Amino acid sequence: MRIALGVEYDGAKFYGWQRQRDVTTVQEELEKALSKIANHPVSVFCAGRTDAGVHGTGQVVHFDTDSIRADRGWTLGVNTILPDSVAVTWVKHVPDDFHARFSATARRYRFIITNSKLRPAILNTGLSHYYCDLDVEKMHQAAQCLIGQNDFSSFRAAHCQANTPNRFMHFINVHRFNHFIVIDIQANAFLHHMVRNIAGSLIAIGRGDKPIEWMAELLAQRDRTLAAETAKPNGLYLVKVDYPDKFELPTHHLGPLFIPD
Amino acid sequence: MRIALGVEYDGAKFYGWQRQRDVTTVQEELEKALSKIANHPVSVFCAGRTDAGVHGTGQVVHFDTDSIRADRGWTLGVNTILPDSVAVTWVKHVPDDFHARFSATARRYRFIITNSKLRPAILNTGLSHYYCDLDVEKMHQAAQCLIGQNDFSSFRAAHCQANTPNRFMHFINVHRFNHFIVIDIQANAFLHHMVRNIAGSLIAIGRGDKPIEWMAELLAQRDRTLAAETAKPNGLYLVKVDYPDKFELPTHHLGPLFIPD
Repeated sequence: MRIALGVEYDGAKFYGWQRQRDVTTVQEELEKALSKIANHPVSVFCAGRTDAGVHGTGQVVHFDTDSIRADRGWTLGVNTILPDSVAVTWVKHVPDDFHARFSATARRYRFIITNSKLRPAILNTGLSHYYCDLDVEKMHQAAQCLIGQNDFSSFRAAHCQANTPNRFMHFINVHRFNHFIVIDIQANAFLHHMVRNIAGSLIAIGRGDKPIEWMAELLAQRDRTLAAETAKPNGLYLVKVDYPDKFELPTHHLGPLFIPD
Repeated sequence: MRIALGVEYDGAKFYGWQRQRDVTTVQEELEKALSKIANHPVSVFCAGRTDAGVHGTGQVVHFDTDSIRADRGWTLGVNTILPDSVAVTWVKHVPDDFHARFSATARRYRFIITNSKLRPAILNTGLSHYYCDLDVEKMHQAAQCLIGQNDFSSFRAAHCQANTPNRFMHFINVHRFNHFIVIDIQANAFLHHMVRNIAGSLIAIGRGDKPIEWMAELLAQRDRTLAAETAKPNGLYLVKVDYPDKFELPTHHLGPLFIPD
């Protein structure tokens, strides 16, 4: 049988999602804990393989097992084995045609900036700090040109392995909560480093280095070398993955933390 | 001359505020950094000596120096030396009759509970997790009996060194932000463990182990052995210290993080 889980993690404690030799990753910790509860080796598939330093509040995985466990075994039980910086948030038995990666119809990320003269001490690995005053209204306006079906080559990492640079952007909203700025972005899927490359260019516009129109020019040029530098991973959270309604997956607060849904 | 600073810190990384032999404390790190910038040994006095694991967003300190530095030396400069989990938030030159501890007229703390079946992974050292459903309305009602001048012996740690158990409570509000609960509490000063002891007893009321009236009974009995266990330090933040207006100290977001002022 196939089981889906919601997973939250503090990415600062791991070398990214994907299992690697010699370094600790979220996938490795989760597979170790699930294997103990299942009493056989478990391999998980996830919706989005986040990079080192990137966090998750709404990551989704699936795995196959014949071990019968109460739901609380796959949540509370697994959580007692996982390190403090990873936690299962929900469990759902799903049909065999569910796939955490291939069934997903949308991914939503939030990039959280703390925009203040002095750096933060609390959650310093969970926020991206920029001391220059950022013009949120300009960032939001500039971002709107990205909505819809587009070739995102300008915001694609050199080593990205996707077959096509085309993605469908559902929305991108930039707004302020006192001295925090949230870039809230959803697309059917993302290229490697796409959110951080878009964030980096929006920040260049927000601090006045580039005009609002620059974003549309960048998009049209399809050339990664023209965009701004990749923003740091600290403030990036995978907050939600959408699936067809028929799977009836549970919902969870988007977060991170006190940010309203 | 005398200088006051605002200080933010992630208490999970330190053995409390106060300088101790052999372990790392916030005071030690701050004094080391200030001594480097001042180019002479600096000793600081703080408004509230927080325990191990307790955080600060609004701690206030003062120190004396004859070294002339631009304000940004005492903020940006000190921040470059401090570990990531401590930061200066503001600086203000104050008259010699200012004392961070003795001039303070009020201290305000926020105790943040994450009230969810499953434990959090993000900010897991910055939140107190309770999985039982807590009745916030009952907690708030129960807390109101503490307001005003009272003998808080029932909520005082055995080793508390204060001269008197009397404190003046200005307000105590308990409210919910989706699955978070905030206990927001201000008094002229606090006894040792007083906030965590009050929080522990309010939680016992919130989960239905004790009736609303129990809080007033506890207060009247002046006996620490009757109250609930001390709540863990994880979710506790010193968010603000008040001083007479004449000192014109800067204000800072109370926090922590995205919680509105």
